[in-house]
Amino acid sequence: MLFPEGVAIDGRTGAVKPETGRYAKRLSELRGLFQDGDALERVVAEKSDPIVYEVVDYRKKESDLCFGTTIMSPGRVGNEYYMTRGHFHLRRECGEAYYTQSGEGVLLLESRTGESRVVEMLPGVCAFIPPEWAHRSINTGADKLVFVWFCATDAGHDYGEILKRGMRKIIIEQDGRRVVADNPNFGR
Amino acid sequence: MLFPEGVAIDGRTGAVKPETGRYAKRLSELRGLFQDGDALERVVAEKSDPIVYEVVDYRKKESDLCFGTTIMSPGRVGNEYYMTRGHFHLRRECGEAYYTQSGEGVLLLESRTGESRVVEMLPGVCAFIPPEWAHRSINTGADKLVFVWFCATDAGHDYGEILKRGMRKIIIEQDGRRVVADNPNFGR
Repeated sequence: MLFPEGVAIDGRTGAVKPETGRYAKRLSELRGLFQDGDALERVVAEKSDPIVYEVVDYRKKESDLCFGTTIMSPGRVGNEYYMTRGHFHLRRECGEAYYTQSGEGVLLLESRTGESRVVEMLPGVCAFIPPEWAHRSINTGADKLVFVWFCATDAGHDYGEILKRGMRKIIIEQDGRRVVADNPNFGR
Repeated sequence: MLFPEGVAIDGRTGAVKPETGRYAKRLSELRGLFQDGDALERVVAEKSDPIVYEVVDYRKKESDLCFGTTIMSPGRVGNEYYMTRGHFHLRRECGEAYYTQSGEGVLLLESRTGESRVVEMLPGVCAFIPPEWAHRSINTGADKLVFVWFCATDAGHDYGEILKRGMRKIIIEQDGRRVVADNPNFGR
């Protein structure tokens, strides 16, 4: 039987107490995600393969709903900001909510039919992610980006399609400003 | 087709922008919920039937997940703190998460099999509400209690059982302190 519990979430660090699991993604695990492969290798070497993001969860498989935090480091590979892999949900009827706690970034979304959208990630903004929209978080700020996510426990992650073909848009720094640009390598 | 959206949540006021709906519960609508019916009528008269709580939602029926805020006024009826009606979910497999933003209170829970639990509601605490646990929020502080809730869009509310028989525990102020006590009127 499941019991209720108070789960302390630190909006600055992303700590979840108690947590039920976590993983970290280092830059070397994200080869192929960024436009500039040489720049990626340089950052891996110079920064000792930095952690790009961590995911901490509170997940009880007997409950329909779970939540957790994502903690994204600030940084760039060439002119592209650190990003998550991006995914659709395996269960296609499942949406998600990303509630930003600290830092600043953008949520890049792409529908099954190829439409792109960008939602600002700022403290106090809860991004509504409808079913059937792939989503990728991007830390465009100078500090950690921390958000709390809520979704169906069995939503599942479908990384394959986005990892293979990329997303139609990329978020880059140009002349010191954040720009949404077309992905020149989309589908290649 | 559903589109992504950034929803601004004010953790102090509970404002949700954009919102898709809201309702308020005034004290006169909560007759029978508190131990002391005469005290309730006095507060209704003295405070012009105050709003006990408001619920604001962001709900898209085509999405599996929805969220919103609950804003609870501070106050008491006799020695009992302001509370929500309390409910089970109609879809019994559905849990919920209550993420407190400001104020202080307690979440009182009761399982189908009659077990009681109390979870502290404090800023930064995300209360995990498993399926099959009735839940009632109680503002035990001097200020507004504001929390964000996340649940399945079609979870539904089953108020009937709790409204009819009450919950096994009550939260009262005794000698200036918050106390969890047995409900002398449970089941009556």
